[in-house]
Amino acid sequence: MSAYERQLQELKERLREIYDLEHTRALLYWDQATYMPPGGAAARGRQIALLSRLAHERLTDPAIGKLLDALRPYEESLPYDDDNASLIRVTRRIYERAVKVPSDFLAAFSEHQATTYEVWAKARPENNFALVRPYLEKTLDYSRRLADFFAPYEHIADPLIDFHDYGMKVSTLRPLFAQLKQQLIPLVNAITSQDPPDDSCLHRHYPEAQQLAFGLEVIQRFGFDLQRGRQDKTRHPFMIKFSLGDVRITTRVKENDLSEAMFSTFHEAGHGMYEQGIRPEYEGTPLARGASSGIHESQSRLWENMVGRSRPFWEHFYPRLQALFPEQLGTVDLDTFYRAINKVERSLIRTDADEVTYNLHVIIRFELELNLLEGELSIRELPEAWRAAYQEYLGITPPDDRDGVLQDVHWYHGPIGGAFQGYTLGNILAAQFFAKAVEAHPDIPDAIRHGDFSVLHAWLKENIYQHGRKYTPAELIERVTGNGLSLEPYIRYLYQKYGELYTL
Amino acid sequence: MSAYERQLQELKERLREIYDLEHTRALLYWDQATYMPPGGAAARGRQIALLSRLAHERLTDPAIGKLLDALRPYEESLPYDDDNASLIRVTRRIYERAVKVPSDFLAAFSEHQATTYEVWAKARPENNFALVRPYLEKTLDYSRRLADFFAPYEHIADPLIDFHDYGMKVSTLRPLFAQLKQQLIPLVNAITSQDPPDDSCLHRHYPEAQQLAFGLEVIQRFGFDLQRGRQDKTRHPFMIKFSLGDVRITTRVKENDLSEAMFSTFHEAGHGMYEQGIRPEYEGTPLARGASSGIHESQSRLWENMVGRSRPFWEHFYPRLQALFPEQLGTVDLDTFYRAINKVERSLIRTDADEVTYNLHVIIRFELELNLLEGELSIRELPEAWRAAYQEYLGITPPDDRDGVLQDVHWYHGPIGGAFQGYTLGNILAAQFFAKAVEAHPDIPDAIRHGDFSVLHAWLKENIYQHGRKYTPAELIERVTGNGLSLEPYIRYLYQKYGELYTL
Repeated sequence: MSAYERQLQELKERLREIYDLEHTRALLYWDQATYMPPGGAAARGRQIALLSRLAHERLTDPAIGKLLDALRPYEESLPYDDDNASLIRVTRRIYERAVKVPSDFLAAFSEHQATTYEVWAKARPENNFALVRPYLEKTLDYSRRLADFFAPYEHIADPLIDFHDYGMKVSTLRPLFAQLKQQLIPLVNAITSQDPPDDSCLHRHYPEAQQLAFGLEVIQRFGFDLQRGRQDKTRHPFMIKFSLGDVRITTRVKENDLSEAMFSTFHEAGHGMYEQGIRPEYEGTPLARGASSGIHESQSRLWENMVGRSRPFWEHFYPRLQALFPEQLGTVDLDTFYRAINKVERSLIRTDADEVTYNLHVIIRFELELNLLEGELSIRELPEAWRAAYQEYLGITPPDDRDGVLQDVHWYHGPIGGAFQGYTLGNILAAQFFAKAVEAHPDIPDAIRHGDFSVLHAWLKENIYQHGRKYTPAELIERVTGNGLSLEPYIRYLYQKYGELYTL
Repeated sequence: MSAYERQLQELKERLREIYDLEHTRALLYWDQATYMPPGGAAARGRQIALLSRLAHERLTDPAIGKLLDALRPYEESLPYDDDNASLIRVTRRIYERAVKVPSDFLAAFSEHQATTYEVWAKARPENNFALVRPYLEKTLDYSRRLADFFAPYEHIADPLIDFHDYGMKVSTLRPLFAQLKQQLIPLVNAITSQDPPDDSCLHRHYPEAQQLAFGLEVIQRFGFDLQRGRQDKTRHPFMIKFSLGDVRITTRVKENDLSEAMFSTFHEAGHGMYEQGIRPEYEGTPLARGASSGIHESQSRLWENMVGRSRPFWEHFYPRLQALFPEQLGTVDLDTFYRAINKVERSLIRTDADEVTYNLHVIIRFELELNLLEGELSIRELPEAWRAAYQEYLGITPPDDRDGVLQDVHWYHGPIGGAFQGYTLGNILAAQFFAKAVEAHPDIPDAIRHGDFSVLHAWLKENIYQHGRKYTPAELIERVTGNGLSLEPYIRYLYQKYGELYTL
């Protein structure tokens, strides 16, 4: 065994231990969200904090830095695409970012986040922004200091964005999102000036068991592997991974809203198939996860919207759904159902928003974050700025902060900055990737019409899933589309789909 | 803060980390047994091994030894019963035992156990003892070497027994069990010479959901707290703890056997209430667990048998059970049902055995273990010795090794020695403790007849549960009963109950 081989092996062993600690922590979290009795909460917090600390200590161990230095000539001798070269490259990126933030700062910010979350959980139902405001002011200060560890930067939000969407910059995203906004506002205006479709068929009584069974039936057809995953119920749906062989999703069921569990199941299964599709050789390494928030969201949104809210999909599955719910849907025709699940409306809550208005919710948050970080906006002014933005972009004003600035957990349980752009990047990329898949296999829509997702799933696995985090988002987008990030496919998709639905 | 206070605090912090690692490992195991998809197995093995190693490294850290040395004068200045003195004393015992076994040996034995388990899982359904024999020979060798790290000893099995029932010695147990055997064999003969009761009422169709609901209803009445615990289904029932606020039990349901889930639920709830009843101040320390296997088993058997198979219990709950299963039990009277759940028969499988024959199964294993460790018996001779013992003690001979020497996992997934005596100690102690509780509160049987377990539960909590591992088994037995281990209450219990049932 050469010195390089020995060093690489040692690096891999160290990384596997970090990986196993991180994924054990994930199980602690999953259990807390699914089955843990209330009495377990105090110890669980301790256990999660301990596993976080042990993983972080190991990641920032100078021995990792030394191994990375020693392996640099080896890495440079290999092709860029080589798995070992990629492992060293990606590990270096993660290591260098991790060691820039002092442990003391991290611990203090972490503790502040936990406190802020508790205050928010109380403030939100009470509609009491004033209660959480001083904490949020501190969060903004912490967020700026966090970014400053990565100085110099082009924009103060860039290092925060890097945590989720590595390499994406405000200088790209701000004009891109502004352009999208300019396209969306008139589209929303045109749609909402028409009579809204009748979606009452979705609000009949749908028993939980059949809803869950239908969701599982569909996602298995998509390609979600229940031998290497499962689904449980939680308050908020999520995807979580314990290893490449154990990727779980969660959903929540409302018996008076058929959309809730169904589309969250499709969405989380999209995230899950991405992780299940990563090359098994990457198990135990930092390559064994999705490339970024935006790329991940592109996979969930692709299956949820481009597939799961498409007409071809329902041409196949609607008879099946009617057979499961004959009393509720027996007399509802496909067209009515299809219009119901694609109803567009001006609404206050991001997570309930339809495909068209959704990005406006995200862009409002993204722009406010930038203004806060730039010092152009204060936390005190934030609720009013929120209301003004909703009025300007969506034509409605939240009646209170509960359904306004207090609605999302993100700012109250993490830094301000970096967490929102991925949602809209995901929508844009879903359209880019889906268009590319259909370009490569023009029979995909027809296959979907027959309930066959194998070609689409195989294309995604080949082009996206298998690579895990080997490539940066920009590299992956370039590889898959031959181009950079582009709005055009998404705008075309929206105008075509909603143009038909609303005869614009 | 004095030097002692600082040292004690450091010790507690170290112990809490070990505790949290051990209980996180427990969650990894629980999830594997309940919900993990098959694809998770490989990584799960790795994760469990990692957490075991991290906990063991911390427990055997010489810094713990130094703190214990430094704290010795402080410990000696405190009363024996003081919680801090007890914490130091119990930690010293655990630490000193842990550091006696070299890590290399432990790792090698651990790996051998994992391999042997896999071979056994294949050999058992194939009825192929020869396949696993060489592994078992190695296990015997490992077990002897493990014991030798604790030399000098009175009997080679004593150090192995210490892992489970600290301080119990072969010199006590062998004659005690021989005496029990002499009492049981004629009792079994007398019972089985009579016509067996008709237990067909237990083998009708009992839907799973109602079975589980009934079990949960009963154990909550016992005092099992679902705010600090839950029940799930697994292949083999067990109790497991993630913290004093999160104590879970599992069961398995057979729809054609009402006994299966019901009595395993009562049994595991007994274990669970013990852990739930430990003083909350002990959380995060080695005191926060049951005193020993035998004491633990006394609590499960007490609730399963002394309460759950008693006539007073069913005088209250049988009408409720009949109401849940009117078709199955509506025409079955209490007497028939009571005789059915207490049917005694000569059988091959320990885990299916009734209250009277059960200990003979255990004593067979205990005696064979001793003979193996003493070198009086070879692994090659073991299957034949097993058959001979069953013929002698239970009057039946296993037709094959599958239902003979291959039936229990213990020897195939751990050392040979130490794991069986706890079951029979549990039965003996259950009777001693129950008799003592009734002596203190003679109205307990009548309260049980009214479905009220509060006095019994409070007495157990006060006298046993709350202390966790503060006292050794011998100390606890002495404190609770004013005497040592004694067969008399158990023999009296059996003769009285089965004397009535079978009119001996």
